[in-house]
Amino acid sequence: MRVIKLTLSYDGTDFHGWQVQPGKPTIQGAVNDVLRRITQEKITVHGAGRTDAGVHAEGQVAHFKTGSEMAPREFQRALNALLPPAIRVVDAEEAERNFHARHQAVIKTYCYRIYRGPIVPPFLWRYVLHYSYPLDEEAMCRAARVFEGEHDFTSFSAPGAEDDDGEAKKPSPVKTIIESSFYRTEKVDAQAGYELVYTVRGRSFLRYMVRKLVGTLLEAGRGRLNEQDIARLFELRDRSQSGPTAPPHGLTMKRVEYE
Amino acid sequence: MRVIKLTLSYDGTDFHGWQVQPGKPTIQGAVNDVLRRITQEKITVHGAGRTDAGVHAEGQVAHFKTGSEMAPREFQRALNALLPPAIRVVDAEEAERNFHARHQAVIKTYCYRIYRGPIVPPFLWRYVLHYSYPLDEEAMCRAARVFEGEHDFTSFSAPGAEDDDGEAKKPSPVKTIIESSFYRTEKVDAQAGYELVYTVRGRSFLRYMVRKLVGTLLEAGRGRLNEQDIARLFELRDRSQSGPTAPPHGLTMKRVEYE
Repeated sequence: MRVIKLTLSYDGTDFHGWQVQPGKPTIQGAVNDVLRRITQEKITVHGAGRTDAGVHAEGQVAHFKTGSEMAPREFQRALNALLPPAIRVVDAEEAERNFHARHQAVIKTYCYRIYRGPIVPPFLWRYVLHYSYPLDEEAMCRAARVFEGEHDFTSFSAPGAEDDDGEAKKPSPVKTIIESSFYRTEKVDAQAGYELVYTVRGRSFLRYMVRKLVGTLLEAGRGRLNEQDIARLFELRDRSQSGPTAPPHGLTMKRVEYE
Repeated sequence: MRVIKLTLSYDGTDFHGWQVQPGKPTIQGAVNDVLRRITQEKITVHGAGRTDAGVHAEGQVAHFKTGSEMAPREFQRALNALLPPAIRVVDAEEAERNFHARHQAVIKTYCYRIYRGPIVPPFLWRYVLHYSYPLDEEAMCRAARVFEGEHDFTSFSAPGAEDDDGEAKKPSPVKTIIESSFYRTEKVDAQAGYELVYTVRGRSFLRYMVRKLVGTLLEAGRGRLNEQDIARLFELRDRSQSGPTAPPHGLTMKRVEYE
């Protein structure tokens, strides 16, 4: 059996997330269906991370096994011809026999886009959280840095939490974040808004963790939490004390890196 | 009665165009409905130009008459609160009593976006025509210039044509185009595609005319028509000889200018 590695970009708006769910449109389900049509094999594609309903991706990585002799470029072409335009295969290559998109992922990068301005352009609303109230953005930048390093993220997880890896076994709540920072985009013109973009990088994340981090950082921006409060949340290990879970549509899985 | 002037931006993907059609979602219908809810008056909003099903706008202008004393900013806020996120009121102001968005429009600007590259990002497919085959872009730039000036555009109109103004009386096929040109966008990275963007400016256009111009320019890019052929089409006054009508989703009404 050969192993094919795919890099996927998708608009998650109209999907119930990555993972197959009977009777609902999902990214994994759509890719499985096309691969099965092409090969007549019962293929299942495995993603580097599960994305929740409404979450987007620019560089999700996935792999599948096949007995087919089709070249990776042919798989890419056939998938892009048969998938809806909201899902694109941006790269396809043959991988080592033991390659596993999830197990071997070393760094995952997520971005969360917050739109700052009174009116979200109709071409952006699917991809940004609109937040037009005042925010202390400097306080958010400082608070974001507190997440960097190795910490117990129990306070930033959801009940019955799985990893974004989708591991069934109880994942460790101790995670290492190698980057947690904000940048601002340029305004296209004086009247337009700008985006405050949060980037977080790490090997793995607890389920809903990135959206919980963003919810907490928004609370910091509103002056309801400071850096000391956030540091204390690591020790408290209490979900009820962190900020709310930010909505999914601002989140994009940007990139997955391997050794 | 006061006259309120609105500037509208919309994603036309899920609408059957500007003009009210019974039982179908349209931009004009959505705006009328909200204005009637707000004011309890039987308001009809008049656009500077009709956009076809699937066509977008960044700067459509429209006006309506009202007996209400609400400030324009209040109308804007209420509309943006009640309209779907695919339609935004980007500006609202009180206009002269005799202001008419259509009759007084002096210049309308449309853009048509052609995506050049093998894979359209899933965040762009609603707004660009994907054209991945070879195109002689220099030939297209030269051909575009031929449309500038005053010409008889009968060959670039649709049967039973109305103006984009929506005038019921038979419009003159003689139109003046003050700009017809292309530019290229920068690639975001080496693997990405770029956009070839067509801009056309004039006082008014025949129905489907902009999409006919683009269809003809694509034929020029494929080497099937040259500048002399296009010049001859003005004299032929024969619809069957021009290029096909380009699909609506690449087209955006950018701006409407007044004295």
